[in-house]
Amino acid sequence: MQSLTIRFAPGGGPLYRQLYAALRAEIAAQRLSAGEKLPGKRRLAADLGVSVNTVDAAYGMLAAEGYVEAHARSGFVVCRLDSLPAPAAPVPAPAEAPPAPFLYDCATASIDTTLFPYKTWRRIQQDVLARAPEFLNHGHRQGDEELREAVATHLREYRAVRCGAHQVVIGAGIEYLLGMLARLLCRETFAVEDPGYARTARILHNNGVRAAFIPVDRRGMDTAALAASGARVAYVTPSHQFPTGVTMPVQRRYELLRWAEDGRFLIEDDYDSEFRFDTRPLPSLQGMDGAGRVIYIGTFSKSVAPAIRIAYMVLPETLLGRWRDEFGFYSCTVSRFEQQTLARFLQGGHFARHLGRLRVAYRGRRDALAAALRAQLPGVRLDGLHTGLHLLATVPCGLSPAQMERAAADNGVRCNALADYYAAGAPENAPPAMVLGYAGLPEAAIPGAAAALRRAWLGD
Amino acid sequence: MQSLTIRFAPGGGPLYRQLYAALRAEIAAQRLSAGEKLPGKRRLAADLGVSVNTVDAAYGMLAAEGYVEAHARSGFVVCRLDSLPAPAAPVPAPAEAPPAPFLYDCATASIDTTLFPYKTWRRIQQDVLARAPEFLNHGHRQGDEELREAVATHLREYRAVRCGAHQVVIGAGIEYLLGMLARLLCRETFAVEDPGYARTARILHNNGVRAAFIPVDRRGMDTAALAASGARVAYVTPSHQFPTGVTMPVQRRYELLRWAEDGRFLIEDDYDSEFRFDTRPLPSLQGMDGAGRVIYIGTFSKSVAPAIRIAYMVLPETLLGRWRDEFGFYSCTVSRFEQQTLARFLQGGHFARHLGRLRVAYRGRRDALAAALRAQLPGVRLDGLHTGLHLLATVPCGLSPAQMERAAADNGVRCNALADYYAAGAPENAPPAMVLGYAGLPEAAIPGAAAALRRAWLGD
Repeated sequence: MQSLTIRFAPGGGPLYRQLYAALRAEIAAQRLSAGEKLPGKRRLAADLGVSVNTVDAAYGMLAAEGYVEAHARSGFVVCRLDSLPAPAAPVPAPAEAPPAPFLYDCATASIDTTLFPYKTWRRIQQDVLARAPEFLNHGHRQGDEELREAVATHLREYRAVRCGAHQVVIGAGIEYLLGMLARLLCRETFAVEDPGYARTARILHNNGVRAAFIPVDRRGMDTAALAASGARVAYVTPSHQFPTGVTMPVQRRYELLRWAEDGRFLIEDDYDSEFRFDTRPLPSLQGMDGAGRVIYIGTFSKSVAPAIRIAYMVLPETLLGRWRDEFGFYSCTVSRFEQQTLARFLQGGHFARHLGRLRVAYRGRRDALAAALRAQLPGVRLDGLHTGLHLLATVPCGLSPAQMERAAADNGVRCNALADYYAAGAPENAPPAMVLGYAGLPEAAIPGAAAALRRAWLGD
Repeated sequence: MQSLTIRFAPGGGPLYRQLYAALRAEIAAQRLSAGEKLPGKRRLAADLGVSVNTVDAAYGMLAAEGYVEAHARSGFVVCRLDSLPAPAAPVPAPAEAPPAPFLYDCATASIDTTLFPYKTWRRIQQDVLARAPEFLNHGHRQGDEELREAVATHLREYRAVRCGAHQVVIGAGIEYLLGMLARLLCRETFAVEDPGYARTARILHNNGVRAAFIPVDRRGMDTAALAASGARVAYVTPSHQFPTGVTMPVQRRYELLRWAEDGRFLIEDDYDSEFRFDTRPLPSLQGMDGAGRVIYIGTFSKSVAPAIRIAYMVLPETLLGRWRDEFGFYSCTVSRFEQQTLARFLQGGHFARHLGRLRVAYRGRRDALAAALRAQLPGVRLDGLHTGLHLLATVPCGLSPAQMERAAADNGVRCNALADYYAAGAPENAPPAMVLGYAGLPEAAIPGAAAALRRAWLGD
C-alpha cells in the first residue's frame, strides 16, 4: 500500500482514536481497498512517530468492527464492504399540540396532589435505600413477598377478598395486568361493560382478544345479554360501575357468579372502592366466590398516586399454575425500591390513615360540588354520589351531550359526557348525563367550576 | 315479621355494623324471607334500645348491597336471593422450593450491588420528591420528556444512535417492550438468534408471534438462513451476541440492513454494550441505518440495577405514527419518581462517571477470572473476553455440558452451559463451552470459584 499520511490534531483526542478514525475514513472512501494489507504495526508507528501501542489499539478497533481482518501471515487486511446509501439526516421532532388550558379539571383520572403523604413517603424511601443491597437484584417474579403479603392483608380486611400472598401478582398498572390476562385466558371473547372504560376494549383488541359490549342497567352488567354473547370472560366493576356509578346488588352478583361457574371467569376491577362515603364498603365479588372463578384487580393510582405505577391482581387457585407456566418467567415490572416503600407504607398502618384523610377530603369536595351544582343548575339530577371520585349530572338544558362538553370546554371546564363511554355511541334511551370527576378539583375551585358550568349550559 | 332478637357484643365493633351483620345473617339463612318487610326504623330502634341513626346506617348498608330494597310505602323489603354453594376455605400457599444455596454466582443476570451509587441516588431521589406535585399525576405516555431527552443524548454520544427524544419510549423492562413490539409489528414471524435468550422466543410466543430460530456463526446471525426463513423482523444482539459473545462485523451489519430495507425490521438489543473493555464501543447498528428499519432497545438493568425496571426503545420515524395509533393510549409503565431520578442521574453526568467505575471494576474482575481459570484449568480456551459481563470457557475434560453444569453446582458454582441457550438443543458442531458471568462474583471470590470449577471438571 501507499504510505499513509495522518495528521494528528493536538486537541483531537487520544492518538489511537485519531489514527483509527483516519484509517476508517480511508477504508470507507475506498482509498484503502478490499484485500489490501495495512502496514506492519512497527513500521507505521515509526513512520508516524507514535508508539506501537497506539497503532495496536487502532488496528484492534478496526478489526473488532470488521473493517479489517487479522490474517496469520500477512497481518491486517482490509475487508470487502458493500456500500450503503448515505444515512438520512434525523427528522426533527414534530411539534406536539400543547395540552388545552383548563381552569377546572373534572376529568376522572386526576388526583389532588396536595394530599400526598410526602413526609412519610420520604422517610420510608430513605429506609429502603439504606437497606438497598437486598433490593438491587431481581426479585420474586410475582412481586416482592413483603408487598404481596401487605396487599393480601389489606384486601382481606377491607374488601373481604379471600386470598394469600401466593395468589397476588404485582404489575405496572391495570393496563399491563389486563393485557397479561387477555393472553393468559386463551384469547377468548371478553365481555365488557357498555358504557365503560374505552381503554379496556382497546387493550383487549391489541392483545388479539375480541370484546363483546354488554349493556349496563341500573344493577350493572345485564346478565341475559352476557349469557347470549358467547363470552367466556366478563370484565366488571361491581363496586362502582365506571362511569355510571351503579353498585351491583347482591342478587346480580350471584347471577354473575353462577354464569362463571361453568368454566368461565370474571375479572372484578375494584378501581376506586376505597372511596365509599356514606355506607361501609361492599365486600368484593371475589369474596362471595366459592368456585375460584373471580380474578380481582386493583390499583394504587387513586389511593396513592397515578405516578406510582403499582397495581395488583389476585388469581384464583385454579389459574395460578397456568399463570406460572406461561408468565412465571417474566420479571416483575415494578421497581423493587417502590415495592418495598409501598409495602412498608401498608404494613406501618400509614396507608389506612392516609385513606382516612383522603375520604374526609374527597367527601367534603363531593358535598361541596353537589351543593354548588344544585344551587347553580336548577333541576339538575345527580347520580352516583355515594362512592368513587366522580358523579353524574343530568341537566335539563336542551343541549346535546356533545354540545354540553364543548360548551364546558369553552368555559374552562374539562369534563366528559356519559355518551363518550359507549362503544358504538350512546343508545337513544341513554341518560344525557355529564361525568364530573372531583378528585383533581380543589375545594376552593368548586364554586367557580359550578358557575362556569351554569354559563356553559344555561347561558347566563 | 317476628320480633328480632339481636345480641350486641360489647367488643363487637360499632352497633350499626353488628346490627347489619345480624340482619344479613337472618336473610342469608332465610329466617327473613324474600318479600318480607323489615321493622320500621323507629320501632326497631326502640325495641333494641339503640338510636334511630344506628338502624338507619344498618338498613342503608343492606340496601346498598342489595339484600333489601326501599319501597316507597312499605319501607325496606327483603330481596329474593338465590343461594350459592358455601364458599370454599382458602387454600394454604404451597411451599415454594427454596433457592439452591450457591457459594459462587456465575449466572449472567446478577450484578455487584456494592457498586451502586447509593449516596448520589439518595440525594437525587430526595430532590425529586421535594418537587413531587409535578410528578404525581400521569406523565407523558412515552415516558417523561426529561428522561427521554437524557436517554437520547446518551445514546447519540456513546452509541452513535441517531435519534431525538420524540422517538424514545420508556418501559418497565426489555421484556415489556419486546411484547409491545411483537404486537405492534403485526404478529409476523420474528427471526431470533440460536443460541440466544430463551426468553425472547417465549415472549414472542405468548404474544402470538412465531419465532424462527436462525443459527449464529462467528459473525453473528447467519444472513442466508435469515433470508430463507420468511421472517419479516429479526431480533439481534450485534454488539455482543448473547451468549456467544460474538461482535458482528461491519460487513454482516450491512447485509442485515440490506435485508431489512425491503419493508422488514431489525430489533437491535444493545443489552450490555456499556461494558466494552479493550476497544472503544462499536457504534450501534441503528446508527448505520439510513432507511429507518432498525428499532434500538436497551436497559439500565446492568448499568444501574435490575431492581430498577427501566428500559427504553428508539423507534424509527417510520413506526412512530403506528405506535402512537395503537399504543399511544397506554400509560407509561415506569414510576415517574424513578424516571425523574434517573433523568437527573444522567443529566448531571453521574451516569457517565458511574459507568467508568463499573468498567474498571468489571475489567479487573474479568482479568482475575481469566487468569484464575487459566491457572486452574490447563488447556482452557476463553472466548468473548473483550466485552460484556460474561465469558465462554471451553475445558477439555471429557464431560458433557450437562455433566459440567451439574458438577459445577455440586461444587457450589451456579453457571450454565452454552448448550442451554439453543432452542432445540445444541447442534453436534456446537462448542462445548460454559457461560461464566462475573458481574455478580466479587473479586475476592474468584480464586475460590476457579478452584471449585477445577474440582468439578478435572476432579482434583
